Amino acid sequence: MRNQGMGSWPARRARMTPERVALSYRGRDHTYRELCERVNRLACALAASFGVRRGDRVAFLGVNQPSAVETFFAAGLLGAVFVPLNTRLAPPELRYVLQDAEPSVLVLGEERDGDGLPGRHLPARDYETLLASGSPEPVDEPVGHDDVCLIMYTSGTTGHPKGAMLTHGNLTWNTFNLLVDVPLAHDEVVLISAPLFHIAALAQTLVPSVLKGGRVVLEPSFDVERTFDLIESERVTVMFGVPSMFGFLARSPRWDKADLSSLRHLLCGGAPVPEPLIRTYQERGLLFLQGYGMTEAAPGALFLGAERSVEKVGTAGVPHFFSDVRLVAPDGSPARPGEPGELYVRGPNVMPGYWRRPEASAEVLSADGWFRSGDVGVADEDGYVRISDRIKDVIISGGENVYPAEVEGALYEHAAVAECAVIGVPDQKWGEVGKALVVPRPGATAAPEELLKHLDGRLARYKIPKYVEFVAELPKNAAGKLLKAPLRELYGG
Amino acid sequence: MRNQGMGSWPARRARMTPERVALSYRGRDHTYRELCERVNRLACALAASFGVRRGDRVAFLGVNQPSAVETFFAAGLLGAVFVPLNTRLAPPELRYVLQDAEPSVLVLGEERDGDGLPGRHLPARDYETLLASGSPEPVDEPVGHDDVCLIMYTSGTTGHPKGAMLTHGNLTWNTFNLLVDVPLAHDEVVLISAPLFHIAALAQTLVPSVLKGGRVVLEPSFDVERTFDLIESERVTVMFGVPSMFGFLARSPRWDKADLSSLRHLLCGGAPVPEPLIRTYQERGLLFLQGYGMTEAAPGALFLGAERSVEKVGTAGVPHFFSDVRLVAPDGSPARPGEPGELYVRGPNVMPGYWRRPEASAEVLSADGWFRSGDVGVADEDGYVRISDRIKDVIISGGENVYPAEVEGALYEHAAVAECAVIGVPDQKWGEVGKALVVPRPGATAAPEELLKHLDGRLARYKIPKYVEFVAELPKNAAGKLLKAPLRELYGG
Repeated sequence: MRNQGMGSWPARRARMTPERVALSYRGRDHTYRELCERVNRLACALAASFGVRRGDRVAFLGVNQPSAVETFFAAGLLGAVFVPLNTRLAPPELRYVLQDAEPSVLVLGEERDGDGLPGRHLPARDYETLLASGSPEPVDEPVGHDDVCLIMYTSGTTGHPKGAMLTHGNLTWNTFNLLVDVPLAHDEVVLISAPLFHIAALAQTLVPSVLKGGRVVLEPSFDVERTFDLIESERVTVMFGVPSMFGFLARSPRWDKADLSSLRHLLCGGAPVPEPLIRTYQERGLLFLQGYGMTEAAPGALFLGAERSVEKVGTAGVPHFFSDVRLVAPDGSPARPGEPGELYVRGPNVMPGYWRRPEASAEVLSADGWFRSGDVGVADEDGYVRISDRIKDVIISGGENVYPAEVEGALYEHAAVAECAVIGVPDQKWGEVGKALVVPRPGATAAPEELLKHLDGRLARYKIPKYVEFVAELPKNAAGKLLKAPLRELYGG
Repeated sequence: MRNQGMGSWPARRARMTPERVALSYRGRDHTYRELCERVNRLACALAASFGVRRGDRVAFLGVNQPSAVETFFAAGLLGAVFVPLNTRLAPPELRYVLQDAEPSVLVLGEERDGDGLPGRHLPARDYETLLASGSPEPVDEPVGHDDVCLIMYTSGTTGHPKGAMLTHGNLTWNTFNLLVDVPLAHDEVVLISAPLFHIAALAQTLVPSVLKGGRVVLEPSFDVERTFDLIESERVTVMFGVPSMFGFLARSPRWDKADLSSLRHLLCGGAPVPEPLIRTYQERGLLFLQGYGMTEAAPGALFLGAERSVEKVGTAGVPHFFSDVRLVAPDGSPARPGEPGELYVRGPNVMPGYWRRPEASAEVLSADGWFRSGDVGVADEDGYVRISDRIKDVIISGGENVYPAEVEGALYEHAAVAECAVIGVPDQKWGEVGKALVVPRPGATAAPEELLKHLDGRLARYKIPKYVEFVAELPKNAAGKLLKAPLRELYGG
């Protein structure tokens, strides 16, 4: 095959193990042979009916379902770029992303309609007919590792989402980094209930499973009872989750008597993992592995492998084998052990840049390939890094990143808001939730509920603060710049 | 690290697991921290004392010993090219290779002296002193995947050995291909008694072990008793061998009572693997995995994974995940299932060419990246390939390739030889051995023993035919071209 990218993986895997089950969904099994054939037909049909060519974008909006997986691989087969959309985004946010990505087609999941969204759509009711119209003749575009495989949107300090471009090479090398640390076998049963529109589920579970010939048990979303049911009935061996998912499981009444004996590797990431949570799993005799990453690094940067997962609990581990991490002190020198430093990542897994955002790309990527994470870490004498703070002010709520600047921007659109700041406060269930501190305009009388209602529909639900508090003033430095640290001290408890 | 190549692997591994044992040799354990430090010092010392720079060659002559491993990684750290020499070569053959490779230094194993060999030498007695003189300051050359990592000499139809250049990327991708099929864990104990100057031991065992953090038990050479001792005492989990090695073990009186319970994966290759041998191991409950490869593909092309190792026994399997194989019928069309075709390989593991031999490279490498193996295979309906014949006429004796043209060339230097042809004949112990068929010059009276004595010292011992037979004439076609097929039929029994 000339195609060296992700799109060729179903065919490469089907060459080896055509009859193994690739995907189980709602009780139906799809073998690798079927996956390969369906992906090929879909690619041909997308090219024929929507004119999808190399470099074009193919968007997908929907919760986890087989068409999401097939669209990802079919886009790759054509050398086109997969753009998975966060289903939790509000309509204006989705419109913004679609106008930025300009996909040739938006493939819709079963539960979605495309009302009000720009561009051409492929509704779920037409999906099978379109797929069946595609030629079974193998597609083989010369796709290389440097070609862009997907664009994943991530917000940032600027408020507007940016599309992180990940190449086929980025995803491939991330897979190798993972395989060095996690010896996935050929008979893994991989439960995916975290959303595939986030990099972790896609890159840490789906892609490695197809490489090794494992079976993915695909779930539309996470549910505690269903997770226990599936672990027991499907004999799940691998699962990825954000800390809040693992927290829900451990606090469930089923936790004590559930049969978890099939589990080999639990992968946790997407947010800081509380030590007590890790210990709860370790005390159960489970291998609970965590790391640190970001969409821009496809995503793995640091990983705490099995060998020292108990001894170094609470740290995010050491750099992955093929990646490098450095911590830079405020004066630009390398941070010494015990000293905080901003975390930079370099390696074949680091993105080439943001889609159509050369300035934003240049801000985070240096000429020699270092990606500036905006997070602060402290390494111990053995090089194990603890993530201590986030320069970017991001709030991580249930595994979703919430950027205060974006929420503040939406709040400022309300007439009653003179000044505002959004901070994260600890939450037992979600890790963190947002709290908005608002200085009202003189004479304005909006209640907190009214401000929350104002945000509803403008922002994804997970971005909307849980608390709104009116304050007389916000702390600032001499230059008038808002100071978040004292705010967190005053209001973050 | 800027170094993305093999040379950086000890440091990358030491970052993760500094205290794990990398190498056990003669009862002494070397941790990854030690390996990393020693490789770094050696690299600095080779640069300082022998002027080794990027692209320069560093040769090694000796049986398996820690300095072979260290020289391989140290060369890679400098971006220099490792040239391991076959210890079985006769002095004129070694001189030829050294004159072709022009190394900056020849590192000598403990059991060797460099008498009569060209260039500068590093004798074993000076090795530790030199290494200790090297700076511990980390070396970090910007070595990429396209840089040449090593040159391995292989003979061919032309008679003279050619240096197959393998890049860091070639070896890296071969490792990934292997890891897809063989789920190496982090606690493997890898017995290496096959010589590291052949690609299989280096690329299928040493390199993957360092990637995963396994422990290599290094032996200077293969010995049946010692192998059983080590499997039992070191609890060996992985072993590579050529078929004759596995044959010796299975025919040993110790076979029946040996404790082989620690073995997880036996990897066999380098020559056609007899089906009864595979079954002997499988009946013992062992996972006996085989493939097909060549130095030029670093080396894996086909692999028969665990899942169908019994069902498809006798075939060399299907293409590795990231590599492609095609079979080409004599008329240039793709061979259909059941039809023989010449085997071509393409993928990121295929060499860029032979050292300083553009014509020889162009003969075997097409513009679009296909390597022409010279071997013939037949695929079944499932794509499993059985290697059926070798266009190149190569004889594989105890895992060493013997090219008849080279042996015939040496025979022709004897005055009594008018015409000759060397063919392979089956041998219980070595798989194949050479048989020379000689038409004597009119009036000449040389005995077979005299011809064998003539070859001694000119050729490596393993290349010298076991049998010499005088014949009245050799079969030829109308154009006078020697026909080997009827020769094999007449004399190959």
